[in-house]
Amino acid sequence: MVEPQTPVFILVEPQMGENIGAACRVMGNFGIPELRIVNPRDGWPNPKAVSMATSSPVLDDARVFDTLEEAVADCQLLFASTAQPRNMVKPVFTAREGMAEIRGHVEAGQRVGVLFGAEKSGLPNAAITLSNAIITLPVDRSFSSLNLAMAVGVFAHEWRAGEPTPEDFKPLDDRATEQEMTAFYAHLEQELDRAGFFYPPEKTPLMMQNLINAFARGGLTQQEVRTLRGVIKALAIGRGKARIERE
Amino acid sequence: MVEPQTPVFILVEPQMGENIGAACRVMGNFGIPELRIVNPRDGWPNPKAVSMATSSPVLDDARVFDTLEEAVADCQLLFASTAQPRNMVKPVFTAREGMAEIRGHVEAGQRVGVLFGAEKSGLPNAAITLSNAIITLPVDRSFSSLNLAMAVGVFAHEWRAGEPTPEDFKPLDDRATEQEMTAFYAHLEQELDRAGFFYPPEKTPLMMQNLINAFARGGLTQQEVRTLRGVIKALAIGRGKARIERE
Repeated sequence: MVEPQTPVFILVEPQMGENIGAACRVMGNFGIPELRIVNPRDGWPNPKAVSMATSSPVLDDARVFDTLEEAVADCQLLFASTAQPRNMVKPVFTAREGMAEIRGHVEAGQRVGVLFGAEKSGLPNAAITLSNAIITLPVDRSFSSLNLAMAVGVFAHEWRAGEPTPEDFKPLDDRATEQEMTAFYAHLEQELDRAGFFYPPEKTPLMMQNLINAFARGGLTQQEVRTLRGVIKALAIGRGKARIERE
Repeated sequence: MVEPQTPVFILVEPQMGENIGAACRVMGNFGIPELRIVNPRDGWPNPKAVSMATSSPVLDDARVFDTLEEAVADCQLLFASTAQPRNMVKPVFTAREGMAEIRGHVEAGQRVGVLFGAEKSGLPNAAITLSNAIITLPVDRSFSSLNLAMAVGVFAHEWRAGEPTPEDFKPLDDRATEQEMTAFYAHLEQELDRAGFFYPPEKTPLMMQNLINAFARGGLTQQEVRTLRGVIKALAIGRGKARIERE
């Protein structure tokens, strides 16, 4: 048996092909490859599932079983997802806690199944009884009916969010140095002074402090500082020319 | 202006009514009441949105705007959700970090908008430029196209998951005391000894240790201990009777 690297998601008697397909799509988005489907109401394959899966590789590899017992036969731990308390005496985890718990077992080489119930009724009590733990989402009690694929998506994201993520976004990596910022502020103050911006003159330090606060708050990159110094220069020369023409 | 208690979610030029409705449903699930919609492709109201919203109160209160600028006019901070890096020089948060950041601003009474782009193209660069920060999800780069409503759902869950959740599940609240467990183990050992289970006799401590480990691992409730003691009693008397008949 190949060692699993993620949990296995198991849909127990799902009704709508659209939801199965949407589950495949979001599992693909968050890197959970293995889906098992127990006795889908509308048979298999299902054209609506294909359409909603948008070519997710998870759909092609999905396996269909007649009974829950067959679907979970090789699993060493089962987590039952349910929004409704069932008066079952089991450990209960939030999605976040549960995925951290599952990660420990998966990393130890165990096969962990996460069970999702049908649209209309959720998981049957028998499936929850079989499970080692309950995993649940903090839905609003006054509007608690969560779409099946949405539940799969939230759990899939929780799994993925616990992994180290690649650094695709690299913002502010050429952040300006304090020396560059100081030179920029001095340039700004010099040109504003020349333009008569500081009045009365004793207010200069306070007015500069306010301006510096505004620029410092978000942080500037070296490129942005260069651009802003160009802006100051252009405005100063422009104003200077205008004044020359007026005078 | 009433102080907001959650961020405002804003769909920018969404295409499919189904996705708008599913977004309303999951926002209702996770307690985010305020949706704004910028220039929906298929007009408003939209029967497919109504169908997928499954009576979510978010749908009734959704507001439609012609332009992004009108939709965000009262927002003090904007977070742009995008799966694709755009070479924008902005702070980038994961959904989890971003929602924690937003919570601080919301609790300070600020109105924070979270922008979601259209199905086909995501957010236009102009919308990201307007935003104070980027918020993103750890999608698999080889299959990164996330359904719009699914993205809304994951962010909505992240918001909700950061709140203290009500204790609806109360497992193991009548957990057995160590005294009860010790009495149970003694009862079990006594009956197993009587049945000749421990062989050779010097293995008794090790065999009991293994049994106790198995029972102790998951923890038992007082009710479960009572039930198990009944099981021992029934088996012991049953065996005793059988033996009486054999002897």
